[in-house]
Amino acid sequence: MSDEKIKQLPKLWLGDHYNEGIGRDDIFDKLREECGVFGAFNVPDACSLGYYGLHALQHRGEESAGMATVESASGKFSYHRNMGLVKEVFDQTALEGLPGDRVIGHVRYSTAGESKLANAQPLIFKYRDGDLGVATNGNIVNAPSIRKELEMQGSIFQTTSDTEVIAHLIARSSKDFVSAAKDALQRIIGGFAFLIMTNDKLLVASDPHGLRPLVMGRLGDGYVFASETCALETVGAEYERDVQPGELLVLDKDGLRVDRFEKLERRATCAMEYIYFARPDSDINGINLHSARKRMGRQLALESFIDADIVTGVPDSSISAAIGYAEQTGIPYELGLIKNKYTGRTFIQPSQELREKGVKMKLSAVRKVVEGKRVVMIDDSIVRGTTSLRIVNMLREAGATEVHVCITSPPFKNPCYYGIDTPDRKELIASQKTVEEIRQAINADSLYFLSNEGFIEAVGGNDGEYNRGMCLACFDNDYPTPVDPTSEKSCSC
Amino acid sequence: MSDEKIKQLPKLWLGDHYNEGIGRDDIFDKLREECGVFGAFNVPDACSLGYYGLHALQHRGEESAGMATVESASGKFSYHRNMGLVKEVFDQTALEGLPGDRVIGHVRYSTAGESKLANAQPLIFKYRDGDLGVATNGNIVNAPSIRKELEMQGSIFQTTSDTEVIAHLIARSSKDFVSAAKDALQRIIGGFAFLIMTNDKLLVASDPHGLRPLVMGRLGDGYVFASETCALETVGAEYERDVQPGELLVLDKDGLRVDRFEKLERRATCAMEYIYFARPDSDINGINLHSARKRMGRQLALESFIDADIVTGVPDSSISAAIGYAEQTGIPYELGLIKNKYTGRTFIQPSQELREKGVKMKLSAVRKVVEGKRVVMIDDSIVRGTTSLRIVNMLREAGATEVHVCITSPPFKNPCYYGIDTPDRKELIASQKTVEEIRQAINADSLYFLSNEGFIEAVGGNDGEYNRGMCLACFDNDYPTPVDPTSEKSCSC
Amino acid sequence: MSDEKIKQLPKLWLGDHYNEGIGRDDIFDKLREECGVFGAFNVPDACSLGYYGLHALQHRGEESAGMATVESASGKFSYHRNMGLVKEVFDQTALEGLPGDRVIGHVRYSTAGESKLANAQPLIFKYRDGDLGVATNGNIVNAPSIRKELEMQGSIFQTTSDTEVIAHLIARSSKDFVSAAKDALQRIIGGFAFLIMTNDKLLVASDPHGLRPLVMGRLGDGYVFASETCALETVGAEYERDVQPGELLVLDKDGLRVDRFEKLERRATCAMEYIYFARPDSDINGINLHSARKRMGRQLALESFIDADIVTGVPDSSISAAIGYAEQTGIPYELGLIKNKYTGRTFIQPSQELREKGVKMKLSAVRKVVEGKRVVMIDDSIVRGTTSLRIVNMLREAGATEVHVCITSPPFKNPCYYGIDTPDRKELIASQKTVEEIRQAINADSLYFLSNEGFIEAVGGNDGEYNRGMCLACFDNDYPTPVDPTSEKSCSC
Amino acid sequence: MSDEKIKQLPKLWLGDHYNEGIGRDDIFDKLREECGVFGAFNVPDACSLGYYGLHALQHRGEESAGMATVESASGKFSYHRNMGLVKEVFDQTALEGLPGDRVIGHVRYSTAGESKLANAQPLIFKYRDGDLGVATNGNIVNAPSIRKELEMQGSIFQTTSDTEVIAHLIARSSKDFVSAAKDALQRIIGGFAFLIMTNDKLLVASDPHGLRPLVMGRLGDGYVFASETCALETVGAEYERDVQPGELLVLDKDGLRVDRFEKLERRATCAMEYIYFARPDSDINGINLHSARKRMGRQLALESFIDADIVTGVPDSSISAAIGYAEQTGIPYELGLIKNKYTGRTFIQPSQELREKGVKMKLSAVRKVVEGKRVVMIDDSIVRGTTSLRIVNMLREAGATEVHVCITSPPFKNPCYYGIDTPDRKELIASQKTVEEIRQAINADSLYFLSNEGFIEAVGGNDGEYNRGMCLACFDNDYPTPVDPTSEKSCSC
Repeated sequence: MSDEKIKQLPKLWLGDHYNEGIGRDDIFDKLREECGVFGAFNVPDACSLGYYGLHALQHRGEESAGMATVESASGKFSYHRNMGLVKEVFDQTALEGLPGDRVIGHVRYSTAGESKLANAQPLIFKYRDGDLGVATNGNIVNAPSIRKELEMQGSIFQTTSDTEVIAHLIARSSKDFVSAAKDALQRIIGGFAFLIMTNDKLLVASDPHGLRPLVMGRLGDGYVFASETCALETVGAEYERDVQPGELLVLDKDGLRVDRFEKLERRATCAMEYIYFARPDSDINGINLHSARKRMGRQLALESFIDADIVTGVPDSSISAAIGYAEQTGIPYELGLIKNKYTGRTFIQPSQELREKGVKMKLSAVRKVVEGKRVVMIDDSIVRGTTSLRIVNMLREAGATEVHVCITSPPFKNPCYYGIDTPDRKELIASQKTVEEIRQAINADSLYFLSNEGFIEAVGGNDGEYNRGMCLACFDNDYPTPVDPTSEKSCSC
Repeated sequence: MSDEKIKQLPKLWLGDHYNEGIGRDDIFDKLREECGVFGAFNVPDACSLGYYGLHALQHRGEESAGMATVESASGKFSYHRNMGLVKEVFDQTALEGLPGDRVIGHVRYSTAGESKLANAQPLIFKYRDGDLGVATNGNIVNAPSIRKELEMQGSIFQTTSDTEVIAHLIARSSKDFVSAAKDALQRIIGGFAFLIMTNDKLLVASDPHGLRPLVMGRLGDGYVFASETCALETVGAEYERDVQPGELLVLDKDGLRVDRFEKLERRATCAMEYIYFARPDSDINGINLHSARKRMGRQLALESFIDADIVTGVPDSSISAAIGYAEQTGIPYELGLIKNKYTGRTFIQPSQELREKGVKMKLSAVRKVVEGKRVVMIDDSIVRGTTSLRIVNMLREAGATEVHVCITSPPFKNPCYYGIDTPDRKELIASQKTVEEIRQAINADSLYFLSNEGFIEAVGGNDGEYNRGMCLACFDNDYPTPVDPTSEKSCSC
Repeated sequence: MSDEKIKQLPKLWLGDHYNEGIGRDDIFDKLREECGVFGAFNVPDACSLGYYGLHALQHRGEESAGMATVESASGKFSYHRNMGLVKEVFDQTALEGLPGDRVIGHVRYSTAGESKLANAQPLIFKYRDGDLGVATNGNIVNAPSIRKELEMQGSIFQTTSDTEVIAHLIARSSKDFVSAAKDALQRIIGGFAFLIMTNDKLLVASDPHGLRPLVMGRLGDGYVFASETCALETVGAEYERDVQPGELLVLDKDGLRVDRFEKLERRATCAMEYIYFARPDSDINGINLHSARKRMGRQLALESFIDADIVTGVPDSSISAAIGYAEQTGIPYELGLIKNKYTGRTFIQPSQELREKGVKMKLSAVRKVVEGKRVVMIDDSIVRGTTSLRIVNMLREAGATEVHVCITSPPFKNPCYYGIDTPDRKELIASQKTVEEIRQAINADSLYFLSNEGFIEAVGGNDGEYNRGMCLACFDNDYPTPVDPTSEKSCSC
Repeated sequence: MSDEKIKQLPKLWLGDHYNEGIGRDDIFDKLREECGVFGAFNVPDACSLGYYGLHALQHRGEESAGMATVESASGKFSYHRNMGLVKEVFDQTALEGLPGDRVIGHVRYSTAGESKLANAQPLIFKYRDGDLGVATNGNIVNAPSIRKELEMQGSIFQTTSDTEVIAHLIARSSKDFVSAAKDALQRIIGGFAFLIMTNDKLLVASDPHGLRPLVMGRLGDGYVFASETCALETVGAEYERDVQPGELLVLDKDGLRVDRFEKLERRATCAMEYIYFARPDSDINGINLHSARKRMGRQLALESFIDADIVTGVPDSSISAAIGYAEQTGIPYELGLIKNKYTGRTFIQPSQELREKGVKMKLSAVRKVVEGKRVVMIDDSIVRGTTSLRIVNMLREAGATEVHVCITSPPFKNPCYYGIDTPDRKELIASQKTVEEIRQAINADSLYFLSNEGFIEAVGGNDGEYNRGMCLACFDNDYPTPVDPTSEKSCSC
């Protein structure tokens, strides 16, 4: 691409973040990961299992990690939390301080500063009956109003996390612990997976629509719970089933008791888990995500009509879909974009001057592969459009003659109230612009989104034996619960 | 000293900890430091002042450090806490995250493990009216019963610290903040210095007997509060006065208002502050501690009758007293014991084998100084007696022909309920044995304790213009408040 | 797979390392990465360029990193080296200590301990004419004999690295620096890429057969040199050409002068660079490696005849080849194996008990994908066979009904003397066993290696305009230089 | 002191470093510590002994630490060095990497940056006969000329340390190792203590005048060597004797052999060791330094005539002398100055604004003690005078009515060429000004230096049975060896 042409590229492209060699993980234009939870009951060396289990869920939250353990014989409760990756937060000494055969753990997405440490989970409380630990993935829509009510009654809070209200609700109840927990779960509205542990019990709950994934496995005589099946696999547990919407599982010295705090409503699993969040080797509701994403790519191929030389995926999340697209169309899959796997928090950012000189760190286009080629670039979603623009231009700079962008989901138009950190609606490019306008904004030769129907079809695939209701609110504005569109969207986890 | 003689030394001396070259700070036989608090109001760069102020109070707590700041214009509340020394907890980044012109800070004594991080102060809460930070030095005697009452009403606690009850009491009150705080302070019994900060106010309070020291200084148009005057000196503030027993100082946009939550009862400042805890360059109730300790040494010289060649002090706390003793008797002060200043937490402990071979790390006797000499060894207190025995034997091994032990306080017989971490009464050697029995247990040629009267006289010294009531309960069992001798003695700070 | 069947799996599989969830990087059965070099001349902020350039070459050596810089105006020479990743070794302070417009840098593979720090490159010496820095990738076959000769003349060495001999040879010469360097380069035999920097010159040299890759790029008025083109791309430099075998480039205030220390012999670029070492987005001798590896996969498909359901590659190195294989055969490419990207040095290893219980950390098979499937598993090489066995068994455990192993290179039979850390010949399974025996040893249903001819064809591909001679000694025992088969194979870098 | 008066204080006092609360260790106006060496031969767990021994010598060098060990049975040579304190450089892992029954170790004074790491000792070389480690305290006056000669013969150097020449001289000799070492030691001129270790020998040497201290002790069947006796005491070794000037001790499998490389010339032990460098619990040539310094204080009392209220010493080095002064005069010793023991490298420096506001960190005057008092301030030396001025003014600000400065050594007029890092002669205030001019420059009411004769008398004291020749060149310009006054004064260690 000539210098002349580069100069003519759209303005945003010449903005602050031009060409910084961006990766997929730490860009404001990318949906933020939610959180991940892991629990185990009646297992030997519970904290080590927790360590490996949380490690498998690390992609769901890189900011902080924590575990609480209980030694069932004595009821002794221990915990450790800190900012950082699982492998950074827990060293041998930390693990030695976590004895027990029961564990709940949590990984959280990224922000910084010690004041955030207070929000690291599991949240730990002392109440009338002893110790209480809570790990959540998701968001409570009506937490602000419950919190205000509790504060007026004299409650004090340690965190800004909505998760803390559940502990207050339980502690203020005069009922027995399980009944109090059921009452509390009934009062809250939202999408959530809860692990609650006391000195003698472990409670596991999924919201009434099953918005956030939560699975159960068996390990010897014990049980394992996790946000994704990949964590079961990692710790050698056998997958048993997904925790059902509205279920409350109670585990104590008498074993497992299956209860409900709410009758089953329509299942509405978060669509973005299928599209982007969960690991490709995980299964949600029995569907493997690599396979589902490949089907999305295939479906997208059926819905788009592009004459191109190569297909490339934006790493790491869109590789499966790109291969599906390539298989369906016969256009060869090539490594047109590559991500540097060593980049991380401690990496020094290039100065503005160096960025302008073309220094890249995280993502780069492979010139030899894309030069002179018409490229189909597969990505999972477009949020603000800025990242897409940068990657398209990166491909053009490396010599791509055409760049066609194919998105393996419908246009993302509506904010999430159930635990995904989305920008305001007015910053969501698809809620403000037509597809043609977006195409222009991201400098693509053509732009295709997967249709709602195509997406549902692709997820369901051929093994449709399960109830596969999804929450598609971010695409179709149909929220499964009441939401308050004026409220600040915060994540409980 | 011959090998033969060394073998004949008392048994304890040959025990596990024999000859480990112990220092004065980290031995179970030593009274544990309490905590230190620092606050400033209406000062520029409050967190930096807090940094230097807490640094000056570091000897009062080496385990954790924390600060909370408020920017008065906006009411913005920030905080940062962690395990470690002040200089380790706060780096440039941490300080940059603490904007404001008001600060409260805290240093805490040593234990380990992240679960202790939750107890690091200032404790931070969110309640109906916003943010609430609390830093305490001392102990609340009736905290357990208040806590139980609050838990029965549904309160949940984040810490094991008694300090948390004060925040609950305030949050649950329906009165205005200052009134609520007064009510809360009236309910609690004990010895404490409190700094309480909200988005718009700073409250400073001392218990009705002034058990824990707390001083006020001026810095420009602002105020500075600290456990000891050395912190005022370090930050360039001018000492104004000691906060009076039962006082409640309220600082807000209208400036300082002096109030009381309790009428002045008899002052009872902790005697151990004079003897051991406070820095020698600090003044308590207008008395300089180096000078007071020198007077204790002089008084002890008057009360003991020892024919000796040299006087030596156990570093660092007993140097002043040893010099006083030497001046009074004319026996030369010599450096018979030396402490390695580089030792600290990260230091590797010698193996049992090396310890047996005589490897010392922290404290050692100076052979050339003590060899062939009759030594007077000055120390501040005897708790269990084990440390004294080791040091006496260390001097004997280095060739001292006689070791006379002089303690600059009366026998320590009773546990403290006001913030000093003392062992159970039955482990206090002076509550179990006579002076002669203690002398034998520590292998001394003679042993003298300062008399109660001599101690009071020495502290009061010549500049007796202040009310100098002291709590001598650890010596005379006369506690200034009701105490529950069956309760676990915990420190709120 | 039933427990019964798992028990029947071959013995090695039940050995010490069974099922540890191994990754590709840190297994003894994998060829060790060599080293990477980076240099720049007449560029602004040379150390920052070096930082990003070395970061792009990080996969070539994760043990230590180092840079030396020269400020051409003053001749000032600076350097910094340490154990760790580039991002760990260089923080802002370290970079600020490296002023200059010239840089040489190095990344080195992994061992541990400070004694290894002395071997971290660039090696730095002070000699008659000032400072001398040397960064090497490769190995000097006759270094031991030269070293012995130098020691007999009284030379002392700081390292165990063969690279040090070149500095001694230069320092002991009475000729001018460039002539001395040419003499020294002529004396040494082996495969190497050298960057040598003094206060006023930068020398760049490639061995007479071009065994180790080394490319040159332009950046503004300056020059950039690197082991791989991906580093040029990262720093925004334009690829100019590969440094030619036997070339000596001299850069000083008069600019670039192209010289030779040896006439061009037959080119013999290391085949393993094409197969495994270099990044897929790099080009060697004008050939893109992703494309070459895809062609290897396609060629392998032509040479093998497998009836299977899915193709999977061992991540990360064999993905390209697996996609090529899938494209050629029409068997769908699936994500049958997945690697955890968060694993690294600080990761705590599972205990033997946990490993036996099935805890995996790094690599795992995706049950949902492989269950009930006949799997073609693509890998790049087999060294001892132990890793292959583990991965095959991992796939079987996850339910694969058949596992067919396809290797994208000929059997690896002979040790390397040019900078690859290979085990002794007798540990190379392909030098000891037939293909059928290997198949049995790794528990595969069938096993195919790429033929020598097929491999050469695949590398050459369709863009055969360059001289593409390769060293295939590890396959065919035809070493391009004399080697001493009895000598210890050490790596100079 | 009134603000008015403070404004009238001399100008320097208002300069950049005014009132920074300086300590004694890290001020440019203070003589820099030299280095410390420790060695042990035929002892169990040699590296642990080295750890505790170097720890005891930490005050001689806080920059870097290192040890090399040899396992005598195998001749295996190991080493570890890094920047930092002993306890930072050596953790359990590092010590585990240092097996053996022989050790040499080193601590070095402070500078920063990795390029300095190369200079950390022991220096390690590989030469014809194996491994060679060298640890030195001191300086080689003619190193530059020897180095130039070696470079012209083709030697390359790794360090800027003069110590490296000794290794080259040995390696280039054709004689046996001990003869080569003797030749090398004869060629060098200066003040030095050498520990040289090979795979089978340990050599210990002191320069022909015994300028740098070096002692020998016995531990079981083994030997221990150290710069100071405090290290012997710490490791439980028994002092045997000081290594004599010109001695070469050879230790190998045949035990200890006492040799000489030079006949005994007049002994000239560095006077500053007695005055300032060595620890007060160490003995040099049989003289305890605490006692010697007390005698210096007593002697100074005899030589000065001051009517004052209190005596105070500048911590930590001048406490012993101050007590001696107080004993002799009867003026009470008081704690007029106090040092914060927690300060260290990681401490954040106060901003200029805070310093101007009076924030102090390291050293402060104790107002309550000095207010309204006539103070005798005892210090060990005056180099540039800037520190003295600051401390005098600090005392005045705290209310001292008079400040009389007494220095326990003669005026420091001449630079050192034997290992003390002194400034240029023209920066030494005593070489430029009269005592009266210095008094004015440091704002003292009176100023006394100890006389040469008084100093010699005080060191010798009452136990004059040893040969106690001292190097007093810094006072009287009488250097015991030829020196090149134009050469840069560098320290070999």
